Amino acid sequence: MGGGRIPGLREKTMTSRLEAIFHVRADAASIEGRAQAIAVEQSVEMPLAAIEDSHVLSDIVGRVEGIEDLCDGSFAVRIGLAVATIGDDAGQLLNMLFGNTSLHADVVLHDVTLPPALLASFGGPRHGMAGLRRRVGAMGRALTCSALKPQGMSAAQLGDLFARFARGGLDYIKDDHGLADQAYSPFAERVAACARASRMVAAETGHATRYIPSLSGDLNRMRRHISLARDEGIDTVMLAPMIAGVANLQALVTEFSDVSFVAHPALGGASRIAPELLIGKLFSLFGADAVVFPTYGGRFGYTPESCRRLAENARAQNALPIPAGGMTLARVPEILDFYGPDTMLLIGGSLLEAKENLTSETAAFTRAVARHAYA
Amino acid sequence: MGGGRIPGLREKTMTSRLEAIFHVRADAASIEGRAQAIAVEQSVEMPLAAIEDSHVLSDIVGRVEGIEDLCDGSFAVRIGLAVATIGDDAGQLLNMLFGNTSLHADVVLHDVTLPPALLASFGGPRHGMAGLRRRVGAMGRALTCSALKPQGMSAAQLGDLFARFARGGLDYIKDDHGLADQAYSPFAERVAACARASRMVAAETGHATRYIPSLSGDLNRMRRHISLARDEGIDTVMLAPMIAGVANLQALVTEFSDVSFVAHPALGGASRIAPELLIGKLFSLFGADAVVFPTYGGRFGYTPESCRRLAENARAQNALPIPAGGMTLARVPEILDFYGPDTMLLIGGSLLEAKENLTSETAAFTRAVARHAYA
Repeated sequence: MGGGRIPGLREKTMTSRLEAIFHVRADAASIEGRAQAIAVEQSVEMPLAAIEDSHVLSDIVGRVEGIEDLCDGSFAVRIGLAVATIGDDAGQLLNMLFGNTSLHADVVLHDVTLPPALLASFGGPRHGMAGLRRRVGAMGRALTCSALKPQGMSAAQLGDLFARFARGGLDYIKDDHGLADQAYSPFAERVAACARASRMVAAETGHATRYIPSLSGDLNRMRRHISLARDEGIDTVMLAPMIAGVANLQALVTEFSDVSFVAHPALGGASRIAPELLIGKLFSLFGADAVVFPTYGGRFGYTPESCRRLAENARAQNALPIPAGGMTLARVPEILDFYGPDTMLLIGGSLLEAKENLTSETAAFTRAVARHAYA
Repeated sequence: MGGGRIPGLREKTMTSRLEAIFHVRADAASIEGRAQAIAVEQSVEMPLAAIEDSHVLSDIVGRVEGIEDLCDGSFAVRIGLAVATIGDDAGQLLNMLFGNTSLHADVVLHDVTLPPALLASFGGPRHGMAGLRRRVGAMGRALTCSALKPQGMSAAQLGDLFARFARGGLDYIKDDHGLADQAYSPFAERVAACARASRMVAAETGHATRYIPSLSGDLNRMRRHISLARDEGIDTVMLAPMIAGVANLQALVTEFSDVSFVAHPALGGASRIAPELLIGKLFSLFGADAVVFPTYGGRFGYTPESCRRLAENARAQNALPIPAGGMTLARVPEILDFYGPDTMLLIGGSLLEAKENLTSETAAFTRAVARHAYA
C-alpha cells in the first residue's frame, strides 16, 4: 500500500476478514499443516518465508481460525481470508474462496460467513420472494412451475406446450435449462411463441402464467436476449451461474433491475462446493431472486438435511427456493410440508408423462398446491 | 422443426453427434440403467415415454454407444449427444456435456470427441505455441515464466518485482491469479507499473520480458482491462475460464484477435472433470493459446500420466502447456525431459524465496532452460 494512507484507516479496511469453512479429509497428524497450506493457497499462494512486507503478512495472508474433528476421517477447518483481496467482484470471491483449492481432491468448500459490508456490496436478490409472488398474485401459498421440454421441438411446438400447461393454472413456466439458442428453436422465436401463448391463455382464463426463458452464451448475448424478452413483456429469466460466470450474473441483475433472475444449478457440482452454500447462499447473494435445486428423493442425491439448509440459506437472503429434479404430483403434500409455503414447486417430466391429459394433470397440481393445509 | 425443411438436409445436420465418455461408479447390475439415465439427463431430461416427436426420439435423445468395465468398481460409458443441441456456444457445450450430471457424485466427465465441424466452429487458439514463441524470439527451447506475488503489495512494489524478475531474462511474467482489481493494486496502476518496468529493463538489457496481466470481473470489465493493457503495449492476458465463463473466453478471443490468452485452472474442480479434458482440450478449444496447470510432483495431486495427456491434448490444438504449482529450479531438467521443449516453465514462489538474490536465481532458471539437452 505504500505509506501514503492514514494508518488507522488502512488497518480498519485491510483487516476485515470473511470466514471460509472447508471439510478436509486428513488424519490428525497432518491436518494442521494441511489447514495452513489451504490458508496460504487461498491468499498469497507463496512460501511465507519469502514475504518481506509486514502488512501482507499480518493483513493479507489467510489465517487458520479453528480446526474441528468431524470424526468421519475429515476435519472442519475455518480460515479467515482478507476481504481486501475480494473487492466487489463475485468471480473474485469464488476465486479466493476455492480457486486453486478446488483442484485438490481432499477438500470440499462447506460454508462461508461474510461480513456485513461485503454482503451489502453484492446486494442479493433485487426482487426476491415478494417480487415473484406479486407478479402472479400468489400470497400465502407455494408457487407452481413447470418446464418446457424436450429440446429438439420447434418454437411453435413449445408455444403450444406452454398454452396447454398455462391452462392448468401454473404461476410460472420455465425453459428446460438445455434450451439455448439452437437452430430448432431460436431464442427470439421461442420467446415470441411463448409470450403469445401466455397472452392467449390469459385472455381465455384471466390468469397470466409467466414465462421464464433460459439465457446462454456470453454476457453480450445474454443482454441481447433479456432485451428481446423484455420487449415481449417478460420480466423473469433463468441462467446457470456456474456456466455463465457469477460476475456476469452480478452485472445483469444490476443492469436489468426490473427483471427477476432464477439461478439454475447446472455445472454446480463440478467444483465440490456444498450445494447449501453454492446454490442456497452464494447464487442468491449475487442477485438470484430464486434458485432451482435438485430436491431429496428425486433423481439426485442431495440429503433432506442439505436441502433444508439450502432452502433456509436462500430464504435468509430473500430468494425463493425451487426444489426440482424428479418431482411428482403424488409428492406435493410431502414436499410442501417439508419446505413450507415460501417455495416454488417445479414439476416437469412427470406432468409431461400425462400426454393428452397434460392440462388436467397440471390443474390437479396447481389445485393440490392451492388447497394444501401445511403441517 | 416443423415439416418445412428438406428431410435429407435435416437428417444430415440433426444426426451429427459428439461423443462424451463418463467414468461411472456402479456395479454390473446397474450400469446399463445408469448409463441410459445419463444419456437422457444430458439431452432431453424427461421420461422418454412422454416424448411423442419421432425426430426428437431419433435425433436429439442421447444414445449410449458403449459401456466398458474398468475393473476398479467403475465403468467407462460412451454417450453420443446431438451436435444440434450445442449450437456454437462454449457454455452450452459444457451444459450439455456435464450440466446436471455434475450434480451426481458418482460420475466423472472423462473425455470428449467432437466432430470436425464443431471443432472448427470454436476455432481454438488464435496465436498458439508459435505466436507465444515469436513474441519473445524463443525458438527450439522451452519458454520461461514467473508470477508476481504476493497480493497485498502496491502496484509500485509489483512493478519493482517485475523489473528484478525481468533482469533475470524471463520470457513472460504473469500476475498471480489472485490479483484482480483490488484497492491495493488496481488493474490500471499495476499494468502501467509493470509495462514501465518491462520497457526500462528492455532498454538496459535488450531483452523485453512480456507481462501477462490477470483479468477478472464480468465480460465488460475484462474488455475494458484488455483495452487498457493494449494501450500499454501488452499483447498477452490471463483469465480463469471456469470463473469468467467459457463463453466469455470465446467472445474475448474473437473480439481481441491480436491478443494471446492464457487459461488459468482456478475453480476447475478437476476431480470431477478430468483435467486432461477440461484444461488440456476444452480451454484450448475455446481459444486459450496457453494453459496453466498444476504439474505432478508439486503441491497438487495430478499424476504424471494425467499431466502428460493434458500437455498432449493442449499441443494437439496448438496451445502451449504451462506446468506450474510447486516448481523449483532443481526440478528444471526433470520437468524439461518430461514435457519437452514445447512447454513454458513457470516457477513462482520458489524464485521469490531467493529474496535479495531473486534476479540471479531467475537468471539461473532461464540459463538452465536455455542450455538443457533434452533426453
